Amino acid sequence: MKDRNKSRIPMQHIETPHLNLDYSYQGLTAEELEAYANERLPQDFAKLKNQLIKGEFKNHTENRNVSHVLSRSIHNVVKAGNGRNRFSEIVRMLRSGQWLGATGKPITDVVNIGVGGSDLGPMMGSFALREFADDATLHDLKVHFVSSMDGGQLYAVLPIVDPETTLFIIASKSFGTTDTMANVRTVRTWVEPTLTQTQWLSRHVIGVSANSQAMEDFGIPASQQLSFSADVGGRFSLWCAIGLPIALTIGSHQFGNMLDGAHAMDEHFASQTDPTQNIPVVMALTGVYNREERNINNLAILPYDGRLRYLPNYLQQLDMESNGKQATYRNEELEHPTGPIIWGGFGPNGQHAFFQHLHQGFDRFAADFVAVLHRKAPGFHPAVQEQLKEQQRLAVSNCLSHRRLIWFGGQNNGSPRDHYHGEHPSNLLYVDELTPQSFGALIAAYEHKVFTQGVIWQLNSFDQPGVELGKKVAKDVLKVIDGNAEQSFDPSTDAIINRM
Amino acid sequence: MKDRNKSRIPMQHIETPHLNLDYSYQGLTAEELEAYANERLPQDFAKLKNQLIKGEFKNHTENRNVSHVLSRSIHNVVKAGNGRNRFSEIVRMLRSGQWLGATGKPITDVVNIGVGGSDLGPMMGSFALREFADDATLHDLKVHFVSSMDGGQLYAVLPIVDPETTLFIIASKSFGTTDTMANVRTVRTWVEPTLTQTQWLSRHVIGVSANSQAMEDFGIPASQQLSFSADVGGRFSLWCAIGLPIALTIGSHQFGNMLDGAHAMDEHFASQTDPTQNIPVVMALTGVYNREERNINNLAILPYDGRLRYLPNYLQQLDMESNGKQATYRNEELEHPTGPIIWGGFGPNGQHAFFQHLHQGFDRFAADFVAVLHRKAPGFHPAVQEQLKEQQRLAVSNCLSHRRLIWFGGQNNGSPRDHYHGEHPSNLLYVDELTPQSFGALIAAYEHKVFTQGVIWQLNSFDQPGVELGKKVAKDVLKVIDGNAEQSFDPSTDAIINRM
Repeated sequence: MKDRNKSRIPMQHIETPHLNLDYSYQGLTAEELEAYANERLPQDFAKLKNQLIKGEFKNHTENRNVSHVLSRSIHNVVKAGNGRNRFSEIVRMLRSGQWLGATGKPITDVVNIGVGGSDLGPMMGSFALREFADDATLHDLKVHFVSSMDGGQLYAVLPIVDPETTLFIIASKSFGTTDTMANVRTVRTWVEPTLTQTQWLSRHVIGVSANSQAMEDFGIPASQQLSFSADVGGRFSLWCAIGLPIALTIGSHQFGNMLDGAHAMDEHFASQTDPTQNIPVVMALTGVYNREERNINNLAILPYDGRLRYLPNYLQQLDMESNGKQATYRNEELEHPTGPIIWGGFGPNGQHAFFQHLHQGFDRFAADFVAVLHRKAPGFHPAVQEQLKEQQRLAVSNCLSHRRLIWFGGQNNGSPRDHYHGEHPSNLLYVDELTPQSFGALIAAYEHKVFTQGVIWQLNSFDQPGVELGKKVAKDVLKVIDGNAEQSFDPSTDAIINRM
Repeated sequence: MKDRNKSRIPMQHIETPHLNLDYSYQGLTAEELEAYANERLPQDFAKLKNQLIKGEFKNHTENRNVSHVLSRSIHNVVKAGNGRNRFSEIVRMLRSGQWLGATGKPITDVVNIGVGGSDLGPMMGSFALREFADDATLHDLKVHFVSSMDGGQLYAVLPIVDPETTLFIIASKSFGTTDTMANVRTVRTWVEPTLTQTQWLSRHVIGVSANSQAMEDFGIPASQQLSFSADVGGRFSLWCAIGLPIALTIGSHQFGNMLDGAHAMDEHFASQTDPTQNIPVVMALTGVYNREERNINNLAILPYDGRLRYLPNYLQQLDMESNGKQATYRNEELEHPTGPIIWGGFGPNGQHAFFQHLHQGFDRFAADFVAVLHRKAPGFHPAVQEQLKEQQRLAVSNCLSHRRLIWFGGQNNGSPRDHYHGEHPSNLLYVDELTPQSFGALIAAYEHKVFTQGVIWQLNSFDQPGVELGKKVAKDVLKVIDGNAEQSFDPSTDAIINRM
């Protein structure tokens, strides 16, 4: 475990317009990292990066290009292209209170029904950025998220919203996701005493999908269909129409700023050829090093700003669904480790929960600390503002100190009980202030990290073959539970089904 | 990895009044598990269990007994003891709208300020059980949770509550937790334009602490102080006065039912001497086996009912703070693995996020599936109820099918891309319906699992020495950030501080 001399590591630091990375505590000198880059990055890495940026990188198994990066440059929904007017118009109408329901009342609540990429990104972004609304709309529009197939969130949302003043976004790349359509069926039943299905479809539903035909078949009016390219993977779709809840929360202009921040990271990633000065490449290389050379199988994501609370959940999908694989893009079996387990949580609360294990447990881990240095606290009285600013400094001081301890460790009087092992490598990703731009840059940096690791491991990071068989088996089991089929699985499963 | 023959494992199943465990997919026969129990459980295990149940187990390093189990039997806050009338009276007054603020208006919002054990348990319980409120109070009391030291939750809560109609619970075992007191300072500043500090303290604050003197010094009236024993660890404190937000959500009677469910699990744990028929003991033994014999360093907690969404977060503290250690209770160094990394998330949504990695990634993992077989959907129209019941069956069918796949794996045509590795051991914890009783039993089962593993590893599961040094270093860093001290840490930390 003692694989580096901590004292020989100088500060290692990369600044970009919207995001900075300090990787001093990875325990690799610039020379070591450069050598590792030469060893691991393919010769044609610059070409592959360029393909990604241009939307020309190949997703071989799904026989399509990878085009999410274009969502924040030439084709983004706010600034250009066919979707522009519709997306921005929908946002403007709903945020201003001009969108009326079928009975003439203004829409006050929007419920986003989606799961996976149609939920995690929009929810994270809406939560992180809500103080950045670009206008003080007189209209108080509430945005709710319903994702879970068990209907658990509908139990909470349906009693507090009114069918006459509620609009549902049905967000599904395929427009056939089981979880989403189960929630939609329940909603359709719930509106029935108040609205006819025709009324509901006419003014209370927006479809967001890559499958226009399915939206049409469902009966959604053309003006309420928002499409995106099948070349955009679900876990990369918050930048396009799937990001509608973010735009409804902060407005189209600020949504555009988020895209611009991501775009700035795209340019940094594409143009910075020194791998030790390229944020996503350093994140990728140190990640591969920790995985393969240090045998660390997990990465704890530790945001120290509460607005980034959902970042670990988001990155679970982004990283684990992209690189949790054991076959190359040529469908050859791999036998070496690939993407790590992503876990973590809001850092300061973790200090009162799982940090005992980080400081004194048996396991090796790597960590990404994410910090926001300043927060302005707009909208509060000056005295309250001062308190909140001090709370932000308190959070940063805790971030820096636990980061130090996790790397340098600590030893008190030779007492095993007071021994802090240290030696756990970490990144510090930080921004001066959280803004739509810096948020966009942060998420794009992780996307490109995942892409780079996928290239190194020769995976296809853009498919998800491991999610298919479970769907099929679940359908078989449900048929038996519902009494529509007879089938024996195994003694344990059969016993549970019988009990039901 | 191929360490067991799946086909030889019959159904292995334990029923108790409120909770059932199927451990068929752990891949151990009853005989193997019994042999392992004989090898690993200490001779005096029955005596140690009995000490725990009686509140006489020793927390040596903190020189106190461990008494949380008593919180749900003889000393519980609802039924008996000195705290009874005060706790129940507070709950009754607040839930009925009879508690008036200093300016004569009824309290409508309660904000629980606490972190770690003073947050995770109350929040999880309030969220899980809110449909079980024991009376239809005319008064709509909202309960909010504020835990994060960065003030992030105050930004959301303060703008939507009114100082005149809001009561704050200050929940801190020591009554000095940095995070909590930082939030309290901001709140005190926030109320000032509306209420004097005397007014605020007189009717708008309830203290919950093991430190009565500190509550007194803070100025909280005696009638608004709720005490609990210093022998109750923070992460075991939802059963006592720290559980106030749960009681405010569901009423004292249902809170008592939650305690009864936990108590029933205590009795099962204490009295069931066959280790293969004792739920917490099986959970502990299979966990130790997975950790030591299979070298699995992590446990994914996968609730398939949205009401148990916060269970993974809660268990991160319960397990990792208790058993993430490398010193015995005699302060001797350990060199073998102890408690695993706890991660996971709501299962059905995980299927669209990290399950790709579970099915096809490199890592070994163990998992606990948690399922609720039926849900009644009270309060909805019959047609909506039917839809919601079907959604619950859909969730269970997905739970059973992914659990099968994770254990049995799957192979399609020899294509590596379509290979599901399987061989990952798991438990299925399930209840017929989620009730306060079954919820209490579930949490108590995990507590006793953690206790049993601590006994096997000869740890003190009831202290947390690894959280101390970080607090000290954070204070030093904050002083420098605030300009109140000069100190050099290391080039990386110094650079960030300078930037601020």
